[in-house]
Amino acid sequence: MLVSHFISNRMRAVDLIRKKRDSGEHSREEIAFLVAGYTKGEIPDYQMAAWLMAVWIRGLTHAETTALTEMMLYSGEMVDHFELPMKKVDKHSTGGVGDKTSLILAPIVAAGGLAVPMISGRGLGHTGGTLDKLEAIPGFNTALSLGEFRRVLKECGLSLIGQTSEIAPADKKIYALRDVTSTVEHAGLICASIMSKKLAEGIDALVLDVKTGSGAFMAKEEDAIRLAEIMVDTARRMGKKCVALLTGMDEPLGRMAGHANEVIESIEVLKGRGPQDLIELSLELSAWMFHLGERTGSVAEGKHLAQEMISSGKALARFRQCIQLQGGDPRIIEDYSLLPTAKHQEQVTSAKSGFITGTHCRDLGTALAILEGGRDKKDDIIDHAVGLEFHKRIGDAVNTGEKLVTILYNSEARLPEARKLIENSFVLGDHQPPLPPLIRQVIGG
Amino acid sequence: MLVSHFISNRMRAVDLIRKKRDSGEHSREEIAFLVAGYTKGEIPDYQMAAWLMAVWIRGLTHAETTALTEMMLYSGEMVDHFELPMKKVDKHSTGGVGDKTSLILAPIVAAGGLAVPMISGRGLGHTGGTLDKLEAIPGFNTALSLGEFRRVLKECGLSLIGQTSEIAPADKKIYALRDVTSTVEHAGLICASIMSKKLAEGIDALVLDVKTGSGAFMAKEEDAIRLAEIMVDTARRMGKKCVALLTGMDEPLGRMAGHANEVIESIEVLKGRGPQDLIELSLELSAWMFHLGERTGSVAEGKHLAQEMISSGKALARFRQCIQLQGGDPRIIEDYSLLPTAKHQEQVTSAKSGFITGTHCRDLGTALAILEGGRDKKDDIIDHAVGLEFHKRIGDAVNTGEKLVTILYNSEARLPEARKLIENSFVLGDHQPPLPPLIRQVIGG
Repeated sequence: MLVSHFISNRMRAVDLIRKKRDSGEHSREEIAFLVAGYTKGEIPDYQMAAWLMAVWIRGLTHAETTALTEMMLYSGEMVDHFELPMKKVDKHSTGGVGDKTSLILAPIVAAGGLAVPMISGRGLGHTGGTLDKLEAIPGFNTALSLGEFRRVLKECGLSLIGQTSEIAPADKKIYALRDVTSTVEHAGLICASIMSKKLAEGIDALVLDVKTGSGAFMAKEEDAIRLAEIMVDTARRMGKKCVALLTGMDEPLGRMAGHANEVIESIEVLKGRGPQDLIELSLELSAWMFHLGERTGSVAEGKHLAQEMISSGKALARFRQCIQLQGGDPRIIEDYSLLPTAKHQEQVTSAKSGFITGTHCRDLGTALAILEGGRDKKDDIIDHAVGLEFHKRIGDAVNTGEKLVTILYNSEARLPEARKLIENSFVLGDHQPPLPPLIRQVIGG
Repeated sequence: MLVSHFISNRMRAVDLIRKKRDSGEHSREEIAFLVAGYTKGEIPDYQMAAWLMAVWIRGLTHAETTALTEMMLYSGEMVDHFELPMKKVDKHSTGGVGDKTSLILAPIVAAGGLAVPMISGRGLGHTGGTLDKLEAIPGFNTALSLGEFRRVLKECGLSLIGQTSEIAPADKKIYALRDVTSTVEHAGLICASIMSKKLAEGIDALVLDVKTGSGAFMAKEEDAIRLAEIMVDTARRMGKKCVALLTGMDEPLGRMAGHANEVIESIEVLKGRGPQDLIELSLELSAWMFHLGERTGSVAEGKHLAQEMISSGKALARFRQCIQLQGGDPRIIEDYSLLPTAKHQEQVTSAKSGFITGTHCRDLGTALAILEGGRDKKDDIIDHAVGLEFHKRIGDAVNTGEKLVTILYNSEARLPEARKLIENSFVLGDHQPPLPPLIRQVIGG
């Protein structure tokens, strides 16, 4: 009866939906009510869906974003590493094509004396995922319990696992709903989703690699900057050191995209070889991790330390140790043929000559997914052997008939569609274009 | 797999949600897909909820509103009355306190030679409903089948029933979802909800009574005008004649609010008595129904005909016949004591003297609901006997201690809260206020 309305002051989801619909700002308590209620199943999907759409359109303040991140974090367990004396640091990338820096910087930073407790995600759509790449290594187990995770971390300074059910369960449930209600691409919601998981790792500092360009989740630079700013702000409001590097994703990072071939390229960098852009970004991210983790007094010193960890072979040794501790076959480091290998190869050559002025980078990632080297839906199975090798970069001159891409594939049936996408992914011009720096700016530095 | 995205052109709810989120305009086919899919259960509640919130914030064009109305209408059956030679007309009011014109104008218009196939709703919150009022008459059955509805209409020119499950099932499902996702108060959605039900009645013309003021659903005049315009436009796009009267709801209509007492007041008007404001509005609405139903060449002639139907007793005879055909006890027309009667009476008197300059009309409706003469939730049971009798109107002078309201009640426990609301519902001033006309404007006339 009506009486209850007048007497009672208890919160109701329908009123909070209305408040956000009307551009109101939620209190921490209101956000706690929504997140806890939804996670417990007391608030139904349809009310959360209406609230998420109101949030998508009306926005979240920085304070609301922090509260949402916190409440999603508190929905699950937080790992602690009190027994480890060193600082714990991590890196998160918003994702792109060929982005394998985690496999490189985690061993570098661990070798340099910090702990890297890294909980990563899987690839979806045109972007790859660290977990999938690691699983290209025969036997490598990314599904450790939190106890095993802490033991591996203690032993070798890094551990690389997937999200467990104990970590931020609210995020898992909310993300699944966002996915089917067109409420994914919103800076505040993305921030809360990423940061609630990352901060559950028990870290002191976080370096963000926010991608911008044709292969990035946030293609427009202004959107990427906004996301970077709110993530840095949220981390700091929660007492963590944080910076974001805004980096280009107008073409794949490195020469390889796939799973087995990205593992190889990462090991090449740890062996002191590998492509220039991948080396540069891996060193820069490692340097910031050393600096924020108070291992070095400056970023420049951090870079020097990172280089030393590679040239001394210490980083590679840490990676070997981690592979072994997580059940993988460390012999792959010397013998790449132990990794999954595709049955067929096909060359994509240039139909004309000129300079490469740009790529449809997202389509290159999509082509890889079509070859089953990526996922359309979360439960799709990945073929770790397939991949793309890029022979030309933006700014390179190319002649008619010259190789652009080598396709490593297994399914003849899927080749034509992928090949067509790849053929149309390179933009050629008559003049060499100006080359934007890979690292555009540091936000919060 | 990704392939399906590139090959298939089939519609997906998630894409339509995104389109509306980004302020896009839907095609008729897209709206058909959403309404049919949701009604059949193929589109889940959470996707519809996200879409409704996007609609609430981004809006609907007139073309989209018409498409939504149509598709909701087509989700169920449409009644036809081909065997009846006269035009079929109806009235719909957006609701208020003491609004009982349906009980008066339906018999008037039927007596005047048109057919009135009226499918009405129940009261909710501070507003009353025609069905509830009719059910104060012992035996009156508002739950006729569509077949019985058509038979009663054929016999006496009017029939008054509630929504059946065959009529616009999409509306029932969508309305329930709007109610719990704070997406109720939106002109386009309200229009589609009302018009999909009204146009299923098989009518040629519709007169709308859109209320504005402190007791109206749309308190602000600009909102009420917007709603009136989109409803008139939608009806006309669907080939129906339609006008909307914008009428004041700053105080209850007539002297009675409740159920049994509103039946009495309606019969009084049909007997040529009753309060001036109620008579005026009932005649005006009847006049427009006669005019749009092509029974009279002008609204003025329509008004004359309506007056004649009262003074001749023909309207009252039709009401008696309708009560009898729908199973009610027609003796209530002569003997009001056959209607439910409240056990107790209580007077609310004025604490000071002055002129009544306004009322918190919504609170008066809420007070009635607290006395169980209204509903907070859809399944609350109504006490038809309780009611309020108003002794003063806006503009009246009142002395300290003079009666303002007589409360007819049954529950001692509920009296104090209702009484307090009523006491605070009258605004007194030192000067007689200017009296705005009851009928503010005719939209689409």
